[in-house]
Amino acid sequence: MTRPHYLRIADALRHTLAAGALRPGERMVSARKLAEREQVSLPTALEALRCLEADGLIVARPRSGYFVRPLTAASALRPARTPPRPVPVTMSALAQSLFSSAEARLIPLGAALPDPAWLPAATLQRALQSAGRRLQGHGLTYSMPPGRLDLRAQIAARAAHWGARFGPHELVVTAGATQAVRLALRAVCKPGDVVAIERPAYFGTLLMLEDLGLKALEVATDPVDGLLLEPLAHAIARYRPAAVLASPTVQNPLGASMPVERKQALVALLEHAGIPLIEDDVYGDLAGEAQRPPACKAFDSSGNVLYCSSVSKTLAPGWRIGWIAAGRFQPQVLQARLAGDWAGSPLLEAAVSEVLASGDYDRHLRRLKSRVHASVQAVTARVEASFPSRTRVAAPRAGFLLWVQLPHQVDALEVHRQALAMGIGLSPGPLFSPQADLRSHLRLNCANEPTPRLLGAVGQIGQLCHALCTA
Amino acid sequence: MTRPHYLRIADALRHTLAAGALRPGERMVSARKLAEREQVSLPTALEALRCLEADGLIVARPRSGYFVRPLTAASALRPARTPPRPVPVTMSALAQSLFSSAEARLIPLGAALPDPAWLPAATLQRALQSAGRRLQGHGLTYSMPPGRLDLRAQIAARAAHWGARFGPHELVVTAGATQAVRLALRAVCKPGDVVAIERPAYFGTLLMLEDLGLKALEVATDPVDGLLLEPLAHAIARYRPAAVLASPTVQNPLGASMPVERKQALVALLEHAGIPLIEDDVYGDLAGEAQRPPACKAFDSSGNVLYCSSVSKTLAPGWRIGWIAAGRFQPQVLQARLAGDWAGSPLLEAAVSEVLASGDYDRHLRRLKSRVHASVQAVTARVEASFPSRTRVAAPRAGFLLWVQLPHQVDALEVHRQALAMGIGLSPGPLFSPQADLRSHLRLNCANEPTPRLLGAVGQIGQLCHALCTA
Repeated sequence: MTRPHYLRIADALRHTLAAGALRPGERMVSARKLAEREQVSLPTALEALRCLEADGLIVARPRSGYFVRPLTAASALRPARTPPRPVPVTMSALAQSLFSSAEARLIPLGAALPDPAWLPAATLQRALQSAGRRLQGHGLTYSMPPGRLDLRAQIAARAAHWGARFGPHELVVTAGATQAVRLALRAVCKPGDVVAIERPAYFGTLLMLEDLGLKALEVATDPVDGLLLEPLAHAIARYRPAAVLASPTVQNPLGASMPVERKQALVALLEHAGIPLIEDDVYGDLAGEAQRPPACKAFDSSGNVLYCSSVSKTLAPGWRIGWIAAGRFQPQVLQARLAGDWAGSPLLEAAVSEVLASGDYDRHLRRLKSRVHASVQAVTARVEASFPSRTRVAAPRAGFLLWVQLPHQVDALEVHRQALAMGIGLSPGPLFSPQADLRSHLRLNCANEPTPRLLGAVGQIGQLCHALCTA
Repeated sequence: MTRPHYLRIADALRHTLAAGALRPGERMVSARKLAEREQVSLPTALEALRCLEADGLIVARPRSGYFVRPLTAASALRPARTPPRPVPVTMSALAQSLFSSAEARLIPLGAALPDPAWLPAATLQRALQSAGRRLQGHGLTYSMPPGRLDLRAQIAARAAHWGARFGPHELVVTAGATQAVRLALRAVCKPGDVVAIERPAYFGTLLMLEDLGLKALEVATDPVDGLLLEPLAHAIARYRPAAVLASPTVQNPLGASMPVERKQALVALLEHAGIPLIEDDVYGDLAGEAQRPPACKAFDSSGNVLYCSSVSKTLAPGWRIGWIAAGRFQPQVLQARLAGDWAGSPLLEAAVSEVLASGDYDRHLRRLKSRVHASVQAVTARVEASFPSRTRVAAPRAGFLLWVQLPHQVDALEVHRQALAMGIGLSPGPLFSPQADLRSHLRLNCANEPTPRLLGAVGQIGQLCHALCTA
């Protein structure tokens, strides 16, 4: 089969850009000129340009055509596009050494958890009482998979607002999104398989890959626009992963969100390749203003997307209420849930269902998002003021995580060690890659009241970095 | 190495018994005569007799010597001692077809669950409120592994009463005993390994073995005295399983409990063989009167026993509060818990801790045991009155499960199908063996108020069996 013209032309344009023939911000060749030069139709030329747009290499400006993507602080952070290869995950020993049992007593810039004072304890307590009165002893018995219908109906109704195509009967309630992702991996992979992931990726995901004996294939991920499709397509062609596992909306640790068109393109790419997408949407409710943007699942018409989420980042982390809409893998997931931890709690499921149904969740979410936004601004400002000048920060458009690139001579593990000794928590970069590199990066949790004490701790981390720069 | 005399003599005696030379209830040769006949010392002869006693083949009567174990309804139930071999577990499809989503609306003789009305809903609700007030938002965040210290301290203190040798720091809180057993299997086995289990065994365990790709090696288990050590020793010598997974106290489905000396012997046997024992003690608190008998863990001095339990059968099934004292496998288990479902609920852990500390749990347990006893008596009587005459029942000394052996021509799956159509739940025998045999057995859950409706349903099952006998 001959390669379609537009793909051939897109490749040529990529080479031109890679060779540095055009500088960031410069105008691209117009579609009309491209069509003439390549002797193809105008739609074909446009299609080629759209490929580069989907890759994040060029951006469209209304009525002006395409431009080479301008350099921003964020794009300066973009990881080197070294060709990926599948690697075993070997970071659990490091992770164990870093998780401090004293975490709860540290200044909380480490774990990705909202301030306990920001969680609606009174609302949840009322919901527990109300559900307890209603269910009596039945609230204490098992909620057998797929979980309570009232909760699944609430989840499906909310998801319909952003265009999800699943109903309550396609959902399985899980012990948090962690179990949901685990069940998804179990449903589509066997030990030794390769899973394409974002670089950097959430370390909980990496621990799980290691635990399941899966190999990780890191794909370059833009700090603003998320997973890059061009390197993904190359990685797929070369290594044929058994699944792609990504957080297209508010990625951890970057805070990146894929533009909607790129989400569509990702779903289409993977559907065409016959490779399932495991979508971790645990931070998705923190994105957007009045209405959150669609998850990839909104564009899934064939059941190829295993959508995973929870209320752990917004409502009640420890209640372990998550869910999965596993598309065509629903039967396997349902069975593995039984064999996994058997059942859930009717009382907690009913209470969360009440909080979703009453509108309390939405009211809480609005307040939480504005608190998170203010705190991220404050922490970012303090980083800019106190860290060494060659530090780069990807200020997230949503979510509460700040990914910081330190000058290359600063060892994040050493920063972590010294900060810990000062009673300050933070997450060093090596946690976010399968072989524990990314040694000059940090993740800071900003989901806490930006008190002088908290911002003072940010400043202290900055001082540590200064000292390690000159050491 | 020569075989010790006492083992050689024990073997010879076993052959004598197996040949039917002595009838059940008849007196065995005395130790003195045996010593003379075999030309060994008196202690050696006694040791040989004790081997047969440990096997459950003979029983000691004070000041009268040993007798061939008398036939009882229970021993008539003892499974044929066909030599076991490791088999893949292939019953999940059957299990899925049998678990009815309508379970909650059936007459509850199926699932092994206490009557919701028997659970202390008000007590738990008060504990939730109290813990909620105390912890505020902190009750909603994660309880990171190994789980809250207050709960682990309560568990360790209770276990010390029956002689457990673990402290709070050797415990990991888990999502029910199901997750505890799963973590234990993950810690000591790899896919393809053989695990020795009881025959019959709890189907949740079997589903887990299938899910983890482990082979099952069934070991004959006495309906009164539990796992038989002689066939276990043979199975170990022949197949060298990676682990033994058993419920030595109140086994599911038999209700059997190993005598204390046999528990000691099991621990010693496995320690000597270097094979870990995974002890599922989830029904243990239902055994005994004022004080429950020791679990095998009480005799573990080398950390070879992975002890798993929960409050799921006595207090709050759906709260998913279980625990594991994993001995020398503690580090692996702790790591796998993180990779498994990350964390637990501080609110629920604190509430259970309060209920254990206040004495409310003990008060509830006394009441529950007496209710369970009365209901087991009532259901057993109805089975005896209404089932075909060749039915055999292993009346349990503790726990709320009744294991029923039907005449061989009655197909339990057919009984299940017809009962379901009448709105009656029950658990057919094939669920309790890895390859779904045991087709003429049933398990009945007796943990419900023995109302005329419930006992009527037992009678209806009896009528179904009669009809299938003559069909």
